[in-house]
Amino acid sequence: MTSPNPGEFSLPVRVYIEDTDAGGIVYYVNYLKYFERARTEYMRSLGYDKPAFPGEGLMFVVSQANVSYRSPARLDESIRVTARITSMGAATLTFTQTVLRDATCLVTGEITLALVSREQGRPRRLPAAMRQQIGDL
Amino acid sequence: MTSPNPGEFSLPVRVYIEDTDAGGIVYYVNYLKYFERARTEYMRSLGYDKPAFPGEGLMFVVSQANVSYRSPARLDESIRVTARITSMGAATLTFTQTVLRDATCLVTGEITLALVSREQGRPRRLPAAMRQQIGDL
Amino acid sequence: MTSPNPGEFSLPVRVYIEDTDAGGIVYYVNYLKYFERARTEYMRSLGYDKPAFPGEGLMFVVSQANVSYRSPARLDESIRVTARITSMGAATLTFTQTVLRDATCLVTGEITLALVSREQGRPRRLPAAMRQQIGDL
Amino acid sequence: MTSPNPGEFSLPVRVYIEDTDAGGIVYYVNYLKYFERARTEYMRSLGYDKPAFPGEGLMFVVSQANVSYRSPARLDESIRVTARITSMGAATLTFTQTVLRDATCLVTGEITLALVSREQGRPRRLPAAMRQQIGDL
Repeated sequence: MTSPNPGEFSLPVRVYIEDTDAGGIVYYVNYLKYFERARTEYMRSLGYDKPAFPGEGLMFVVSQANVSYRSPARLDESIRVTARITSMGAATLTFTQTVLRDATCLVTGEITLALVSREQGRPRRLPAAMRQQIGDL
Repeated sequence: MTSPNPGEFSLPVRVYIEDTDAGGIVYYVNYLKYFERARTEYMRSLGYDKPAFPGEGLMFVVSQANVSYRSPARLDESIRVTARITSMGAATLTFTQTVLRDATCLVTGEITLALVSREQGRPRRLPAAMRQQIGDL
Repeated sequence: MTSPNPGEFSLPVRVYIEDTDAGGIVYYVNYLKYFERARTEYMRSLGYDKPAFPGEGLMFVVSQANVSYRSPARLDESIRVTARITSMGAATLTFTQTVLRDATCLVTGEITLALVSREQGRPRRLPAAMRQQIGDL
Repeated sequence: MTSPNPGEFSLPVRVYIEDTDAGGIVYYVNYLKYFERARTEYMRSLGYDKPAFPGEGLMFVVSQANVSYRSPARLDESIRVTARITSMGAATLTFTQTVLRDATCLVTGEITLALVSREQGRPRRLPAAMRQQIGDL
């Protein structure tokens, strides 16, 4: 869980059987789980101990996910998953993310989260302290 | 979704890539998902339209799962998953379940559900109407 | 598994506990599994009984996935997942897909598959018969 | 990844959204994934860098899984998963496993793996070096 570049977060991940499919590689859907683990630990490193539910009656939901697959990860490999916040809207955060084997980029993604009310799913403005903190990254 | 034997429920399931692992077979953990789909549809066929949350503030949780694996299912196969209630306690239901390819039994399981309060996870007596209905199966 | 519009395929899906998350809604990653089930059954309806492995030493992999989330599906709901092939390249097929609750569109996606060699993951030209058949849809 | 007791292995695990369900707790099926991660890292710590496929044409499959659920883990918690080999047969290894929050035991399991041929799934005798090493634990 290191941050080699300012504002970039990196999480080591091991590939287990649960992550693979009959093609003998990581099931492409599961890279989205890796991405989320990295986003979650990134937010935790910024001081949010419940990253998905960052306030009373609030939750983050994914509103857009764009993922490009270049090369597969395989069982038992040690990979790294990065997260960087590249855009902030009134109610949204966009993360640019990668999955890396050493210096080789396997998967890239751009994931947009929207903050919504838990009850009705209505967009909610990011808390001021969060906006400030992320703006300063 | 037929019931060839009294009190037995059977659900057809197709094996998709999401269900498999790098061994080229269904990931053994996923049979528990198949079992749950069959239990859920069984309860739905008995009139429970929210089988996991069968009343205000109540939910079923799994308290014990014993599964025996004999032979694997594979990608693209059509299999059947059965469910039968074989025991009922004050707060529990035990299902005996199988995964079948034609007449071949691939997996068997005995799954015990406990009814608990959603807030604190305390055991709750099965509703009288449910006890009656299941006792009559 | 009906095809109301020419070239569009629709698969009914039930939401189970396995599909949900602590937000009380379908975990957004799992819509990609729903999409794949619909693509797979669509290809099966076109005569491919092993849709992911459509020939000796060949497999389809996902090369790009763009997904927009509008509104969540919930536990026990009956939804429909559609698939339509909207673009074909030398080695690729692009599907436009939706998740629908009645007439309400919950999720849309554009998923591009690439045909590759199983051993080395090199792009492989779509078989002529497949190109012909899909071109005629 | 410490071994406080001789022959016991312990792996720290963080609970992510992917692990939870609409009950707001870890989906019970997913503890089996946690168990497998701990078994895998345990075997890796013993020198097996491909724990699921420990030799040419061989793989381990789960033949029996018995799991008792006492109390649930929740989103964002840090838990530990232990593994200990408690029985060895000609072609099988049985692990006794737990999921712990601090000193509280949440889940216990007994998981039996069988070594089989990859092609036909026939039981295969554990390699002599493995038998020796595990017998000495």
